[in-house]
Amino acid sequence: MTISTGPGEHERLLGIDFGGTKMAVGVSTGDGRLLLTDRLPTLASRGAAQALDRALDQAERMVLETGGTLVAAGIATPGIVREHGIDFAPNVPGWEDLRLAEAVRARLGISRVRVANDLNAAAAAELERGALVDADPGLVIGLGTGVAAAVTVNGRVVPGFQGAAGEIAYAPTGGDWPGSPQPSLERRFSGHALDELAASLGIPGGAAGLCEAAERPGVARDALLDRVAALAGHVVTCCLLLDPQRIVLVGGVARSDLVRRLLVERITPVLPYVPEVSVSPFAQDAALIGSVLLARSTTTSPV
Amino acid sequence: MTISTGPGEHERLLGIDFGGTKMAVGVSTGDGRLLLTDRLPTLASRGAAQALDRALDQAERMVLETGGTLVAAGIATPGIVREHGIDFAPNVPGWEDLRLAEAVRARLGISRVRVANDLNAAAAAELERGALVDADPGLVIGLGTGVAAAVTVNGRVVPGFQGAAGEIAYAPTGGDWPGSPQPSLERRFSGHALDELAASLGIPGGAAGLCEAAERPGVARDALLDRVAALAGHVVTCCLLLDPQRIVLVGGVARSDLVRRLLVERITPVLPYVPEVSVSPFAQDAALIGSVLLARSTTTSPV
Repeated sequence: MTISTGPGEHERLLGIDFGGTKMAVGVSTGDGRLLLTDRLPTLASRGAAQALDRALDQAERMVLETGGTLVAAGIATPGIVREHGIDFAPNVPGWEDLRLAEAVRARLGISRVRVANDLNAAAAAELERGALVDADPGLVIGLGTGVAAAVTVNGRVVPGFQGAAGEIAYAPTGGDWPGSPQPSLERRFSGHALDELAASLGIPGGAAGLCEAAERPGVARDALLDRVAALAGHVVTCCLLLDPQRIVLVGGVARSDLVRRLLVERITPVLPYVPEVSVSPFAQDAALIGSVLLARSTTTSPV
Repeated sequence: MTISTGPGEHERLLGIDFGGTKMAVGVSTGDGRLLLTDRLPTLASRGAAQALDRALDQAERMVLETGGTLVAAGIATPGIVREHGIDFAPNVPGWEDLRLAEAVRARLGISRVRVANDLNAAAAAELERGALVDADPGLVIGLGTGVAAAVTVNGRVVPGFQGAAGEIAYAPTGGDWPGSPQPSLERRFSGHALDELAASLGIPGGAAGLCEAAERPGVARDALLDRVAALAGHVVTCCLLLDPQRIVLVGGVARSDLVRRLLVERITPVLPYVPEVSVSPFAQDAALIGSVLLARSTTTSPV
């Protein structure tokens, strides 16, 4: 039996979600259904170039494996996407000077490449097929190597004036601010910060290990609660400003449902209207799916 | 000479902005140009009904004075507008149970009456003819008897899921939250709070007197700085989330340019991108103008 194939049948889209710890690579059909995904360590301390190289090597292998033709790529990255680099992506040395779209075009020989902030990509995925399909406004909170957010209004991601909406990592925590310098939310609740906290408590397995240990009352729970409180303070302000219907947690640290439960416990007594708080149905893949949708959103003309 | 008049020439729109201290009443042409405005004390402690009565008395007199026919009214009020009352409007006893639109319809004999949150009305005015005409996203911060905000995205006010976007008054201030109960931003930076602060320092003239005394270094300046810091902490989080192009300050306390300057001083060192911070060109009339636009937005069918 022969199945008739349409003209776009062998088209492939590439999505890459660059993170400070891991890079996710995905290859999809032309309409955005993922066929293959893989995850590689970023090895951030070795710099940006090697990370990009390895991700693209892997991408080429995966496209070959699916037997299709690559037509477009979408790249999700932390930070603020600029024409000549990425602003405020401190977790990978050299990342800020990377001309990401240009490099990917040159390497893969395709013109249709688009780059977006990772949380904004994740929010686009949630809007199209995830936890924000039926919720407006939406607030996405990314708890990965870094900490960030994204806002959706009327079914669209709000980029902000400088493309910097959602960069809550810079929010000072602690009440004495601005009297004395206060640690930023990034220093209190990023994956890095929780890794350090776990190490300081002698808990193996970094942030994930800390969340696991915190399932039981004790030192780990108390320490995590203290950090969730810092996050919750800012989430409360975000909720008061936006009145979201739903908050969606994405990223590695959000895998622990404990963080969600503790966050809900903290914000509930303060808010006049408490939004639903859910964990992304895509586990850690929200930004990856978003990057594939970003590839799909490119037209045949270069962006 | 006879000037030919169009059919809508004598149409009048009524706008009322109810505040915890003052009520502003305005009568405009059918296309929203203000002809007459007036301000009355709310006398909040005497309750909601007398305030509404006096405002509508004054409105009727003003419409008569302009020699036109009232066709629609828009009412701006603090709190969350519900079908059967106003939620979270604590500054006027009895206000929450007022069926505002119904009462105004009955009293004025018109069907076209619409009620909206005052900051959202102010934001609509800024969008159409004020400081947000050319800015997106926009953040309006209301510093009056209460403290509140409004968000604009793509030229529209974001109401939020429950109509409660911008209700930042409930944000806890102070770093020990949630360890111990912390005063809300309302308790730290509303006009009421600043009135009390002025009284406690022996400064006459309430919040306005405090702002004036704070123009010179000294106790008043230090005290105001401390309160601005509490406000600034939340404004920083709002800016990080939304990345607004411009912040517009509205309301009585915003009349002092000092508050704007101190706020800018506080938020600038922390934000990756600092929005413009301006004072509303409408002085205290932003919500009043918004309420007239709200009246204009009603169609001939009852809302």
